Amino acid sequence: MSGRTSRRRVLRVTLPGGSQPGGSAPRADFLAGEEPLGIRVNGTALTVTMRTPGDDLELAAGFLVSEAVIGSPADIAEIKLCDGTACGHADQNGADHSGMGNIADVTLAAGVAVTPGAQRNFMTTSACGVCGKTSIEDICVLPHASLAADTTRFAADMLAALPGRLRDAQRVFSRTGGLHAAGLFTAGGELIVVREDVGRHNAVDKVVGWALLGDRLPLAGCVLLVSGRASFELVQKAVLAGIPLLAAVSAPSSLAVDLAGQAGLTLVGFLRGPSMNVYTGASRLSGCSS
Amino acid sequence: MSGRTSRRRVLRVTLPGGSQPGGSAPRADFLAGEEPLGIRVNGTALTVTMRTPGDDLELAAGFLVSEAVIGSPADIAEIKLCDGTACGHADQNGADHSGMGNIADVTLAAGVAVTPGAQRNFMTTSACGVCGKTSIEDICVLPHASLAADTTRFAADMLAALPGRLRDAQRVFSRTGGLHAAGLFTAGGELIVVREDVGRHNAVDKVVGWALLGDRLPLAGCVLLVSGRASFELVQKAVLAGIPLLAAVSAPSSLAVDLAGQAGLTLVGFLRGPSMNVYTGASRLSGCSS
Repeated sequence: MSGRTSRRRVLRVTLPGGSQPGGSAPRADFLAGEEPLGIRVNGTALTVTMRTPGDDLELAAGFLVSEAVIGSPADIAEIKLCDGTACGHADQNGADHSGMGNIADVTLAAGVAVTPGAQRNFMTTSACGVCGKTSIEDICVLPHASLAADTTRFAADMLAALPGRLRDAQRVFSRTGGLHAAGLFTAGGELIVVREDVGRHNAVDKVVGWALLGDRLPLAGCVLLVSGRASFELVQKAVLAGIPLLAAVSAPSSLAVDLAGQAGLTLVGFLRGPSMNVYTGASRLSGCSS
Repeated sequence: MSGRTSRRRVLRVTLPGGSQPGGSAPRADFLAGEEPLGIRVNGTALTVTMRTPGDDLELAAGFLVSEAVIGSPADIAEIKLCDGTACGHADQNGADHSGMGNIADVTLAAGVAVTPGAQRNFMTTSACGVCGKTSIEDICVLPHASLAADTTRFAADMLAALPGRLRDAQRVFSRTGGLHAAGLFTAGGELIVVREDVGRHNAVDKVVGWALLGDRLPLAGCVLLVSGRASFELVQKAVLAGIPLLAAVSAPSSLAVDLAGQAGLTLVGFLRGPSMNVYTGASRLSGCSS
């Protein structure tokens, strides 16, 4: 059952209509893989996220960046995958995790602490960035720094070309129809990296974790494109990774726009065909004067 | 900033092409509202979910059903909305929540306990149903009961008509493009209730909470249609509400299919136009013989 895609038998039903007689027939269908990944830091279980297997260390690393705990590869002493039994990590009830999925085991570098504030977030947070937190003050983990110093300019026609490039780069979506994608591009529109996941937040965490593990943070001058909608959490993740422009194929939420404005992030939504909506930070856009 | 929709100023950019000169112009745009809702049970903060305001008590009630803590309206002594200050609910750091969003305050009936098992889920879970949980064993809260006793039959042509009915019933989506919808239908295809949210899990929790507060659980003989993809968590929510058929406009994940099969749920995906994929429980479908 493990893997990015999973094959299942399905009954394909088509209703009669026009010249089609309709009917049903079994066939094989490829589904997006979805399995739990536990994330442990310094031996303590922090969260479980349902994710599409693959790039799991990047996911774990990106999750920790999104929680403002780490910001460079030097903050990690060791990061590895294991199952619960092999690591000797039985949970507090004595159950082991063998066969239940994988665990990303992170040891922080000496001097890098899970601070009380971070701990508060950690113990109840998730790859969604918000849910699971137990009080409203826990939600926002944005640093005081803003993106105002990033004066990169992005051409509107370059942005308009990105959704097509993201689709071309997606390996799994066309096969399953079930995955979100996040793609990181240069200001010139060149694809740097693309990651996919059943969870949009995981796809972004995988991109950010990839950047952290390659010592590429902050991602100044880059564009992050997501295949779906732009939520508050995705804005938060982009800001923490130092990305000045977040673009979404679909709509942002009200809080996403508010947070983007506060943080100095350029937020573009409904990036489809030849048009787009610029919600915040329009001064970074070029080639769109009326 | 409160409400189901929120008006923002946006720069609409259109590239030149064909007979269009291109350009940019400011205009007003309506966004899907997204704000935090804290859920407290018996005075203890359990979780915070980012949700679209509206139907908040239904959301809180449905969340508790999805966590297998309550199953009938009699399990709730009181459920009300308040802000942190008015309720005297400062958090452990002494911060109050006034002006930060709303809190759904639930008092369970005498004898209805947040059991140790549920507590374990609760303290780390979320409206996403999974994320935030700190060990892999916490993820699945399915009861031992299955849906096998629900022998309702559903006509394929009835199912094919549902996405159009859901779209017709959505009040907010067409305005913002940013909301997921969950619609509950009879076996004959009549719409019972529709709820919308920036989070698909919240939309389903709102439907389930609506049913609980109206003493309509279990939802035997009903269809739940979701506007997006079918994840593991949505299958879990449908099963806990006693719904025999979950249909999704888009793809299911591998774990959604596996769990649906175990629980006796009929899972239909890619319900679009005249066709659909039946992943599990095809014996409940009628009118689709080849």
